Amino acid sequence: MKKFWALIIIVISHLSVSAENGYNLWLKYEPIKDAKLVAAYQENISSLYVYQKSETLDIATKEFITAFKGLTGKSISTSVSIQKNAILFIKTDDLQKLNITHPSPENDEGYLIKSIQHQGKPLTLISSKTDKGLLYGAFHLIKQLQLKQSIFNLNIWEEPKIKHRILNHWDNLDRSVERGYAGFSIWDWHKLPQYTDQRYIDYARANASIGINGTVLNNVNANSLILTDDWLKKVKALADVFRPYGIKVYLTARFSAPIEIGKLPTADPLDEKVQLWWQQKAKEIYASIPDFGGFLVKANSEGQPGPQNYGRTHADGANMLAKALEPYDGIVMWRAFVYDNEVPEDRAKQAFNEFKPLDGSFHKNVIIQVKNGAIDFQPREPFHPLFGALTKTPVMAEFQLTQEYLGFATHLAYLAPLFKECLDADTYAKGENSSVAKVIDGSLYKNQITAIAGVANIGNDVNWCGHPFAQANWYAYGRLAWNHQLSSSAIADEWLNTTFTGLQKTSSTLLKDMMLESRETVVNYMTPLGLHHIMGWDHHYGPGPWIKDKPRADWTSVYYHQADNNGIGFNRTSSGSKATLQYFSPVAQKFDDLKSCPEEYLLWFHHLPWDYKLKSGDSLWDGIVKKYYKGADEVKEMQKTWAAVEHDIDKQTYQQVKQLLTIQSEEALWWRDACVLYFQSFSGKPIPIGLPKPKHNLKYYQDLEFKFVPGI
Amino acid sequence: MKKFWALIIIVISHLSVSAENGYNLWLKYEPIKDAKLVAAYQENISSLYVYQKSETLDIATKEFITAFKGLTGKSISTSVSIQKNAILFIKTDDLQKLNITHPSPENDEGYLIKSIQHQGKPLTLISSKTDKGLLYGAFHLIKQLQLKQSIFNLNIWEEPKIKHRILNHWDNLDRSVERGYAGFSIWDWHKLPQYTDQRYIDYARANASIGINGTVLNNVNANSLILTDDWLKKVKALADVFRPYGIKVYLTARFSAPIEIGKLPTADPLDEKVQLWWQQKAKEIYASIPDFGGFLVKANSEGQPGPQNYGRTHADGANMLAKALEPYDGIVMWRAFVYDNEVPEDRAKQAFNEFKPLDGSFHKNVIIQVKNGAIDFQPREPFHPLFGALTKTPVMAEFQLTQEYLGFATHLAYLAPLFKECLDADTYAKGENSSVAKVIDGSLYKNQITAIAGVANIGNDVNWCGHPFAQANWYAYGRLAWNHQLSSSAIADEWLNTTFTGLQKTSSTLLKDMMLESRETVVNYMTPLGLHHIMGWDHHYGPGPWIKDKPRADWTSVYYHQADNNGIGFNRTSSGSKATLQYFSPVAQKFDDLKSCPEEYLLWFHHLPWDYKLKSGDSLWDGIVKKYYKGADEVKEMQKTWAAVEHDIDKQTYQQVKQLLTIQSEEALWWRDACVLYFQSFSGKPIPIGLPKPKHNLKYYQDLEFKFVPGI
Repeated sequence: MKKFWALIIIVISHLSVSAENGYNLWLKYEPIKDAKLVAAYQENISSLYVYQKSETLDIATKEFITAFKGLTGKSISTSVSIQKNAILFIKTDDLQKLNITHPSPENDEGYLIKSIQHQGKPLTLISSKTDKGLLYGAFHLIKQLQLKQSIFNLNIWEEPKIKHRILNHWDNLDRSVERGYAGFSIWDWHKLPQYTDQRYIDYARANASIGINGTVLNNVNANSLILTDDWLKKVKALADVFRPYGIKVYLTARFSAPIEIGKLPTADPLDEKVQLWWQQKAKEIYASIPDFGGFLVKANSEGQPGPQNYGRTHADGANMLAKALEPYDGIVMWRAFVYDNEVPEDRAKQAFNEFKPLDGSFHKNVIIQVKNGAIDFQPREPFHPLFGALTKTPVMAEFQLTQEYLGFATHLAYLAPLFKECLDADTYAKGENSSVAKVIDGSLYKNQITAIAGVANIGNDVNWCGHPFAQANWYAYGRLAWNHQLSSSAIADEWLNTTFTGLQKTSSTLLKDMMLESRETVVNYMTPLGLHHIMGWDHHYGPGPWIKDKPRADWTSVYYHQADNNGIGFNRTSSGSKATLQYFSPVAQKFDDLKSCPEEYLLWFHHLPWDYKLKSGDSLWDGIVKKYYKGADEVKEMQKTWAAVEHDIDKQTYQQVKQLLTIQSEEALWWRDACVLYFQSFSGKPIPIGLPKPKHNLKYYQDLEFKFVPGI
Repeated sequence: MKKFWALIIIVISHLSVSAENGYNLWLKYEPIKDAKLVAAYQENISSLYVYQKSETLDIATKEFITAFKGLTGKSISTSVSIQKNAILFIKTDDLQKLNITHPSPENDEGYLIKSIQHQGKPLTLISSKTDKGLLYGAFHLIKQLQLKQSIFNLNIWEEPKIKHRILNHWDNLDRSVERGYAGFSIWDWHKLPQYTDQRYIDYARANASIGINGTVLNNVNANSLILTDDWLKKVKALADVFRPYGIKVYLTARFSAPIEIGKLPTADPLDEKVQLWWQQKAKEIYASIPDFGGFLVKANSEGQPGPQNYGRTHADGANMLAKALEPYDGIVMWRAFVYDNEVPEDRAKQAFNEFKPLDGSFHKNVIIQVKNGAIDFQPREPFHPLFGALTKTPVMAEFQLTQEYLGFATHLAYLAPLFKECLDADTYAKGENSSVAKVIDGSLYKNQITAIAGVANIGNDVNWCGHPFAQANWYAYGRLAWNHQLSSSAIADEWLNTTFTGLQKTSSTLLKDMMLESRETVVNYMTPLGLHHIMGWDHHYGPGPWIKDKPRADWTSVYYHQADNNGIGFNRTSSGSKATLQYFSPVAQKFDDLKSCPEEYLLWFHHLPWDYKLKSGDSLWDGIVKKYYKGADEVKEMQKTWAAVEHDIDKQTYQQVKQLLTIQSEEALWWRDACVLYFQSFSGKPIPIGLPKPKHNLKYYQDLEFKFVPGI
């Protein structure tokens, strides 16, 4: 008896020693404290039964065993026969052989989790057409336990709505990460291919657990070196690690690679030698990575080479690559984020202008990758007018998880509401109910290829994403990529309760509310009422509404806010740049008409006088200022909320987030004061009565300089 | 009873879930499995008693409580009265007040750990003149437990032999680390000063546990930005974290800072405005960091600015800084690793030639930082001739923990034997028994300032050092900085058994032997018999004995090995560059005379014909080749040893090291084959019979190119 106690003490004490550093993400399998529930789980799950072995199923069952042991304390194992209370992992085609008849999802990655009775035994059946689907099923059932939900009478039918659910890593080969704020690249290229870090496995696990099934390893601002033999060996090593987790590897293809590494005089897509070079390259890649996903291409944009260098179209370029990949079922993701050498009358119109005329001329395995909005991942943008506009060409959405414009890794901003705002937006492309989500899940135009991309917020920080709450954006992206109908709230609930395992109900609600508001808060203190692209030059750190006189007009802030003594805002209506007309009716009219334009997009579409009256009754000037102050105040509320849940959060994470909220609070004030003072220099109006004065004068903020800002 | 079991199972299962990622270094407080020993520890340690509270003592007691809980399972706490079996933390000055009379070390950082009887109670006394000493004592007693040693009849008297025991971080402000192979800088400058990462605390803990008491935060190739107001705030935040752990912060001072950030037209050390600028800067620094340690300076070396730019001497430069720091007890560490613009007749002689004449002209708070050898941290170098040569100027040693020349973070090389080789070398400066250690611990010349520096091998990899065994070099450096008389073997024992907590005796012995041989193995497959500086150009990755025609002769390999058809080696004897004559007699004669020159330094000092007969009877050619083959074979033995201890090592670490040994094995063959083939092109002699042929021809190795090699 004494020994028992000694042992208990020894082991419990160990638990308190290990600190929570965030490495395990939402896959924390810590003991569930509800003894009754634990007993129920223990009693009703006895073992695992696997009909056909595979590497993927091995991973699935091991993950379940580890999770079950961690969560409930019970060791279970796989069994050669079907025991009472077993969990069955059976592929659809094998169900018959076991005399089990249950319809399963048609989709390759879909799965069924069903409580069944079979030969008198209660069982939990996980079935899917593929091993990958069974792995997804295992993670689903684990989450069921993590969230302390019932495992009885299960009848879960899941199918992903989008086929390719991809992370885009803007990781350079020197391990810097463009717009990365969580340390440096997790790809330790130098040690590859021989050394495969545990981190790669845990990366794959985390992605598989939320249904992400593809990863573009390197930056869209590409280096062609990645396509050379030595580097492809490294890529292959990663692909080998990821494969059993159902994750395909993709690469960015630098358009000039045939010149740079192929020693050809040109990269003209209509040149036969160039075509042959890419065909040969594809053959090489597939010889070592048979399930290679394909290429992501940023061409003729921000200095990247492309087909236009040779007088060819984006379609010419994309199709050449597509044909090279076609024999192997690879795809080309061609970005619509393009830049003309000539600055257009309105930057927001360019992608539409360039790609709309090309609709129908792309090869069948090309998909156009379109950012959620027409400018560049701003805190808020109206949905991109290209969604729905291409009727004969598949279109995918690109979201940015890394917070280039939303406070880096020091601001808490839960982005599911941002993603949802775009996905749920109705394009009216085929009348009402033509949401962006329906465009990209292929249901609107019956596309065969469907895809979605998220620019990763992952780095080699111990906790992967820098900010503990930034993990929620990785999680939310994966969940929405699988099912865009999930609510931001439901996803927050899942993430919070798998991540902070000691969370009581009241704390969970407080935190969820905080998360759901957090992105709007960032909009308020950075770019309220449709303002956009007014951040610091180049590094995008902090406010920079005064940025002007740069190599391109559309790289300045003054271009975007158009503030002058009379008013502020970019006139994109029919009396201005006519960008509104790129949208389908009645969206075009809604945005065009000041009366119907939602106030959150007001200055995106309209240039308005400072005394324009807002719905609140405030003048535009007062309204802008109040938004900025509101945003900064809301961060203070977040700080209070965080303090209120301290008892439910491990000490290390509590401290981390507390410090980060301090930074966010200071930077929100910085944004507020700098922007208010700057715009005041045009409006000439006072800060509304009752609001405190900015701490410094405008010059102070304009003179701030920052060196070695991360992410560039 | 059932509940007990459930609980035990729950908690034990948790243990198996958490993987060993190396983050906790040698501070793993996992349950000791020997129940009898645990019982003895539990019975004989009851509580802690602290006479006077302080932040440092709070850390010391918390660390001990955590460790004791982890190791033995028993929760103890501090008590307001002295209980039986208590551990007392009492400063020397307070002993009297408690009627305890035991002599304690005079040294500020020294400590006594003594089992005493006091008022009839058995107690363990930790006493020291300072809180810092008590913290060191706590870590010592913890180690006693970790190593499963007795806690009875203790009488441990410890004093550091060297005053400033410092890590040098070659960390740039963009977080790249020059010659860093463990990821990127742990200093997340962007988030400082508000966000202090848990990693900073754990860094301080680790250093305090081995007695390191200073850290130079930034690269010797310095950026003066670190001395600006904004950055000093960040430095202050780190200093505040480190202070209670007894660690002082130092910075590198870029000599041209008065121009770059002070807007002065010159940085001439004799210019009054320049002097004033540095005085003002020192005042500023000390206002916010009252215990700031001082400056480390690399001047007039490899392109860094320095006093010679203004026709002044190193002493002029160092003294100006020293005077600025003097009011605050700061020190200047001035590096002797200097580079003349004119390539000297022998690079190895330069530091001596420049600094010997300046002896006596340095201000009293200047110390000269001398690399262990005269070239540059090679796998093996004879000790630097400056050790002992400066009789009126304190000299400190600089070792390189990061394996710039010893295989990066992929080769297992335990460096304690390298450090010891230098420390134990007898300079004969004041006759026999004038070891390098005695020079740097101040005992030879009675120096007031003593110091030692280790170029850190720390990065933001989860396990800090990249290679699990590289942690041993950080550990060994700290231990030797404290007490240079410790043996490499004893340190390896300590490190192995605190790091791999499940190690059985036989495995421990196997691993220790492997560690002790490992550096010699690297010498064998890279630079046997005194060869040096023949690695790849610039990045120093892999072999490059063919490197020639670079901007400076002494940046090439051919300069150092001098191989031709007749023979190989650098004639540094009295018939050559006369570098041998920089040493004291009889060392000079020993190196100068072929008969007495140790074979490990043979080609360092002598140019010899290919058929020169070695002690083994082999010709020089055969001897070199056999060493290369031996080195490569020894790595295969290391792989076998590692496989033999698999059962005692956690799975993750086992896999990591296994993969790394594969790389080391391949790269050892690469070194062997490339060097043998290259030197064969001069010797024209066959590879000795029985040895396998290289896999490729020389051109293959010469044509290898590497991009994005880490550390540059």
